[in-house]
Amino acid sequence: MRATTIHAPFDMRVEDVPDAVVQDPTDVVVRVLRACVCGSDLWAYRGESARQPGQRIGHEFLGIVEAAGADVSGFAAGDLVVAPFVWSDGTCDYCAEGLQTSCPRGGFWGSVGSDGGQGEAVRVPFADGTLVKLPADAASDDRLLTALLALSDVMGTGHHAALGAGVKPGSTVAVVGDGAVGLCGVLAAKRLGAERIIALGRHAARTDIARLFGATDVVAERGEAAEAAVRELTGGQGAHGVIEAVGTEQSMRTAVAIARDGGSIGYVGVPHGSGTGLDLSVMFDRNIALRGGVAPVRAYIPELLPDVLDGTIDPSPVFDLTVGLDGVPGGYKAMDERTALKVLVTP
Amino acid sequence: MRATTIHAPFDMRVEDVPDAVVQDPTDVVVRVLRACVCGSDLWAYRGESARQPGQRIGHEFLGIVEAAGADVSGFAAGDLVVAPFVWSDGTCDYCAEGLQTSCPRGGFWGSVGSDGGQGEAVRVPFADGTLVKLPADAASDDRLLTALLALSDVMGTGHHAALGAGVKPGSTVAVVGDGAVGLCGVLAAKRLGAERIIALGRHAARTDIARLFGATDVVAERGEAAEAAVRELTGGQGAHGVIEAVGTEQSMRTAVAIARDGGSIGYVGVPHGSGTGLDLSVMFDRNIALRGGVAPVRAYIPELLPDVLDGTIDPSPVFDLTVGLDGVPGGYKAMDERTALKVLVTP
Repeated sequence: MRATTIHAPFDMRVEDVPDAVVQDPTDVVVRVLRACVCGSDLWAYRGESARQPGQRIGHEFLGIVEAAGADVSGFAAGDLVVAPFVWSDGTCDYCAEGLQTSCPRGGFWGSVGSDGGQGEAVRVPFADGTLVKLPADAASDDRLLTALLALSDVMGTGHHAALGAGVKPGSTVAVVGDGAVGLCGVLAAKRLGAERIIALGRHAARTDIARLFGATDVVAERGEAAEAAVRELTGGQGAHGVIEAVGTEQSMRTAVAIARDGGSIGYVGVPHGSGTGLDLSVMFDRNIALRGGVAPVRAYIPELLPDVLDGTIDPSPVFDLTVGLDGVPGGYKAMDERTALKVLVTP
Repeated sequence: MRATTIHAPFDMRVEDVPDAVVQDPTDVVVRVLRACVCGSDLWAYRGESARQPGQRIGHEFLGIVEAAGADVSGFAAGDLVVAPFVWSDGTCDYCAEGLQTSCPRGGFWGSVGSDGGQGEAVRVPFADGTLVKLPADAASDDRLLTALLALSDVMGTGHHAALGAGVKPGSTVAVVGDGAVGLCGVLAAKRLGAERIIALGRHAARTDIARLFGATDVVAERGEAAEAAVRELTGGQGAHGVIEAVGTEQSMRTAVAIARDGGSIGYVGVPHGSGTGLDLSVMFDRNIALRGGVAPVRAYIPELLPDVLDGTIDPSPVFDLTVGLDGVPGGYKAMDERTALKVLVTP
């Protein structure tokens, strides 16, 4: 089969690799219908996260079960399924609590020795604990299938950020980061009843989606000017909840500065220097909480799925460029250069 | 009147100062019956927090109202009252929400131009928003009066930490810090229903109080050995909630290391380098939250007061040395040298 591999920074390839096969009785093999490129994949692409040459990549996919191991009870060939961005055994304490990202037997797609989502097929360990079945007729609905793909990561991660930010009906929420996760954070905040959603961003294509998703205000300024703008919009106080979907020092500094006293920052941007943007003295004096981390999206899919199926939320607009498998390297380049927001891959 | 002043690091004096008087119609003057020395006062004592020469000090006191301004409605001369460690107007958004520490008109006892608690009397701004009345007959109960004094800071701060740590019935909680706040954190965690409370500490006088307050386990090790000990006590997973009551880099590093995935650190130690002990990548991967800050003890006094009055909780054992006003400088020395846990002052 063919799959995307990363050989060095900026050196993405689509190559022949061994076919995905059932190795353990709890495995299934999924033929990928939809995959995509994540903003966090760019850390590897840029060489800021180390990868071994030839390592697979891609952690978001949905597709059709092609084969199932003998111990798999929940899935059979032909099932349409979506995978969260980590696999998990479904039986440990953490899985039972809905923190599947801490499953001791869990792992990330594309880690050494595992398949990545940006390929023709994926071997899925612990299929019963990992995958979620989708209605079969969704496979023929192109727009819906794309929306459902967002459940593999960005929609669940935006939801995790909104929960971390403590969003509840009537909240004022500010969103730092205009990538797909930030935008899904807007959508999640709206879904949880936020009354006012302030999106920070300056690219019209992205802020248009933010408004479509429920942003009531857009702040185009950066740094201290952005902080001042958010304070002016909030009677000087700042936002009850802040979604931090970038992970850099500057983004965290902004998040702290625009949070209201007693508020909470829901952080889901993979930390790349953001620790140094946390001024703990300021957070202490103002009782600002920090909650979030890697999102246990497996726990959120059952909750979010009905709303995607009935159209209550539609994250599909975050995908603005579609490529075949051979177009994946170009997709990375487009996202790196910000000419694409999020790249959909149809192998 | 006489009051404690700080002139330079390690230079505490008890001096004649202008009498406390009603200046604004919302003021009262409180004659101090009980005050004390806080661990956070030691930052000033050691020169790690700047003070102006001659500045007052002490932010914990209770006493008898001596005079009340014309606009004070809730208090009259003769009332027994306890003061939280900040004053607050009682009318702003933050006061209404129970975050009195963020009151724009609030302030800290002992800040420039204000009286400190370690003196004969204190002018209390915004008395109606600040003070809490105590039953008059408590004044004749020496033990109870001392217990009630803890409501001015350490008991409410321990409660804030326990809330930040997410303590609920059945929780496993670890407490970093064996000072009065950490010990009150043990008491607060017990009160909130924690099933297992692991106190980190190696001084028998303090760990004895921890056990009296509800600690089920004591870990005497430090650093990585302490982390290993807590993990061993918790089936390898760590504590659901961690109370961080120190504020240094090492204490925060320990707090992160002993928290269970998905858990929460309730931090109330005034940050002195603790920001660098926060490994955000570890917190991200393990979904560890950080909540807390300067405790709005004014909000907690009404909740905790009945339990102190009826003996459900008795924080008075944290006071292990009693001095008169002239003994305050010696009290600082004793706390700095850790020969005293917490010094009670009876002016």
